[in-house]
Amino acid sequence: MKQVFVVRSDLKMGKGKIAAQVAHAAIECYKKSARDDIIRWESEGSKKVVLKISGEDDLLHLRRVCSARHLKTCIIHDAGLTQVEPGSITVLGIGPADDEEIDRVTGHLKMM
Amino acid sequence: MKQVFVVRSDLKMGKGKIAAQVAHAAIECYKKSARDDIIRWESEGSKKVVLKISGEDDLLHLRRVCSARHLKTCIIHDAGLTQVEPGSITVLGIGPADDEEIDRVTGHLKMM
Repeated sequence: MKQVFVVRSDLKMGKGKIAAQVAHAAIECYKKSARDDIIRWESEGSKKVVLKISGEDDLLHLRRVCSARHLKTCIIHDAGLTQVEPGSITVLGIGPADDEEIDRVTGHLKMM
Repeated sequence: MKQVFVVRSDLKMGKGKIAAQVAHAAIECYKKSARDDIIRWESEGSKKVVLKISGEDDLLHLRRVCSARHLKTCIIHDAGLTQVEPGSITVLGIGPADDEEIDRVTGHLKMM
């Protein structure tokens, strides 16, 4: 199992900013997850993968694809105090879920 | 209140790698925290800040300083499958705790 974070590359966020946004998504997805999934995921090492996507439209489309496949997601909006416009969507978090389930929807995306 | 993540800059990790390591720390620190602290931190927007530190010795020293001041911390070791040596310490997570309490020990560190 793994958690996957899909980060918008068009926002040109710095690496500290990206890390903070991904951390928000990690906790939000963790809180949404079923206890059994968390236990299994942690027993396998709590794998986390960070991917990139070109923009908001593609990110929202991917979220709809996840929902259709019953993959749990969370969307992170930035407060916008620094670097990006207030309210911008920065990251889509997915899972934890089975690697194969997630790969089926994110297999076309590159590692960040 | 805020969570702070202190990332080793000497490991030359890529931005996706840094984000994944910080996400590990975010969840570990979240799980260690008292419920009251989590509620207060979330009510203030779950602030997260990412700082950098020059190496492992400085990171471990900072952890001892945190412990002496009763700040909750977590240490993330990398599995070392990519980019860094197996077992390397990559990130120190601190809090959530009061901004001033954390600033007292991390005030000398720069944003990542």
